[in-house]
Order: sequence, then C-alpha cells, then structure tokens
Amino acid sequence: MLSIRPASAEDAGLLRTLIRELADFERELDSVSITETDLVRDGFGADPKFRALIAEWDKQAAGYAFFFHFYSTWQGRQLFLEDLFVRPQFRGRGIGRALLSYVANIARNENCRAMRWEVLDWNKPAIELYQSLGATFLDDWRLVLLPSEEVRRLAEKAA
Amino acid sequence: MLSIRPASAEDAGLLRTLIRELADFERELDSVSITETDLVRDGFGADPKFRALIAEWDKQAAGYAFFFHFYSTWQGRQLFLEDLFVRPQFRGRGIGRALLSYVANIARNENCRAMRWEVLDWNKPAIELYQSLGATFLDDWRLVLLPSEEVRRLAEKAA
Repeated sequence: MLSIRPASAEDAGLLRTLIRELADFERELDSVSITETDLVRDGFGADPKFRALIAEWDKQAAGYAFFFHFYSTWQGRQLFLEDLFVRPQFRGRGIGRALLSYVANIARNENCRAMRWEVLDWNKPAIELYQSLGATFLDDWRLVLLPSEEVRRLAEKAA
Repeated sequence: MLSIRPASAEDAGLLRTLIRELADFERELDSVSITETDLVRDGFGADPKFRALIAEWDKQAAGYAFFFHFYSTWQGRQLFLEDLFVRPQFRGRGIGRALLSYVANIARNENCRAMRWEVLDWNKPAIELYQSLGATFLDDWRLVLLPSEEVRRLAEKAA
C-alpha cells in the first residue's frame, strides 16, 4: 500500500540517505556535501528553502520528491522539482508517477503555471515517463554552474 | 557612468520591457506572457518570488539581472540567475560582468554555495564570458518543462 506525506524535520536523516542513494544512481555521490543539519535548517525553519514528500510502501520509505518555487520571466510562477527518486526495490508500482501527481497538485493549488526539472541524458526510463506526461525537452539550453570559489572571486570585483 | 540598483515596484514596466527585449534576442518573444501586474505582485509584495537589478548608464536603462534562491540537494543553498541582459547599444562596457559581480556578492552574503543559470547553445559571446569566469557546463543534463495544461491533467490523478 502506497502513502505519500510531506517530510518534516524528523525526516532529515532519511532525506539525506535518499538524496545520497539518488546521487549514487546518478554516479555523482562525490558531489554530495549536504548534511542533516543543512536540511533541518534550510527546509524546516522560519524561511523554508524547499519542501519534500516521502513515499512509503507498507510503511517502508520507498522514495521522495524535493521541490521549491521557481520564477520564469516569460510565464511567472513555476515549481522546480529538484529530485524525484524511487528506490530500486520499489520500482514498477507507479510510485514515481504518484509522487509527480502529488507535486503537480501542489503546483496547481499554488498557481504555478508550469513545472520544471532536469534529467540525465542517459536515464531512458525517466525520459520515457516524462514524455508520457507530455513534457517538453528544452534541448537548445545549456546548464551553467559557477562553483563557490568562482562566486567568491567574482563577488570581490563588485563595486 | 555605470550604476546598478535593486529594482522596485516602480520598475515593473521597465522590467517587462527589458524581459521582452531579451526574449526577442532569444527568438522566443511568443513565449512571454508575463504582465506588469504579475511582476508587481510576485516581486514586490509580502512574499517576493524574485529580485532584480537595473543597470543604468548615464541614467539610461542599460540592462538587468533577475534572480532568486535555488536549492541543490547535493550542495544546499544556491542562487539561480534567471536572466542577465545588456541592451545592444550598451554592450562592450563591462555591464554584464558588473551585474554578475553584483549578483555574486549577494550570493556570497546570503551563504549561497554556487550560482546557476542557463544559456542558449548558440549564444557564443555569453558562453565565452561565462567560461572566462570559471563556470562549468553540465552538458549531460536535459531541461524538462511540463506546461500548465499537462500539470493540470497530472494533478487530477493525485490521490
């Protein structure tokens, strides 16, 4: 039996475990530096920077979704889905789709005009799921990241 | 003479004009549906969804930056730069770089570990500027957008 519930501060340890499992699947575990303390402070304090959902199958943690508001200068309010993950042993039961529906319902209730996210180009099952939902792939855009050391260096040039 | 200042509600009309100029340069003017009312409500009310900077050259509007907080499950707080634009007649004076430095300074002061944005794959001058700052291009990721009608349809399947 599937149930989906909003994550609370007590889930920060579980969330970090699931975040690391997804990063491992994405072959990026070395990129993860987030701590349980970061998650508690940034997600469950006075000014939350994100929200998360926990999916449980027969009371066992089966997956999660992690999202926050995003703003498009073309269309206004959107919802950004940072992570969507179902543990391998729980796949094939519609849990990913159920998490997406739950998030879409939040997006609609909060007047977000669209949802956005990112997918690795080799993750075929995920891409097929998103295509089946009518998603569009913006393949003429490149993602750019300025790491913290470069941000610091650039900030020092501010007038 | 260059000056950079935070945008206020009185700049919403100017912001919309600049947003449309950038979208036109990006060959996407038809995608822009945002109104001045949207920008006033979403940027300058009780719970701002974005912030913007206006760059002026000799008191004339020369460009803008548009940004908000973003949250990486790998690294925590980041700053997302939705738009950066310098009007053609003001290019070549370091205004884009000055806007980026100003935003980087905000990112650093607010403990954002990195900055992120997106660039069109044909926009060579922008890509070269970002490379010169030490930016990384995450070219194995694809951007996914679920438009509003598809969000609505997916939301209806929520339990």
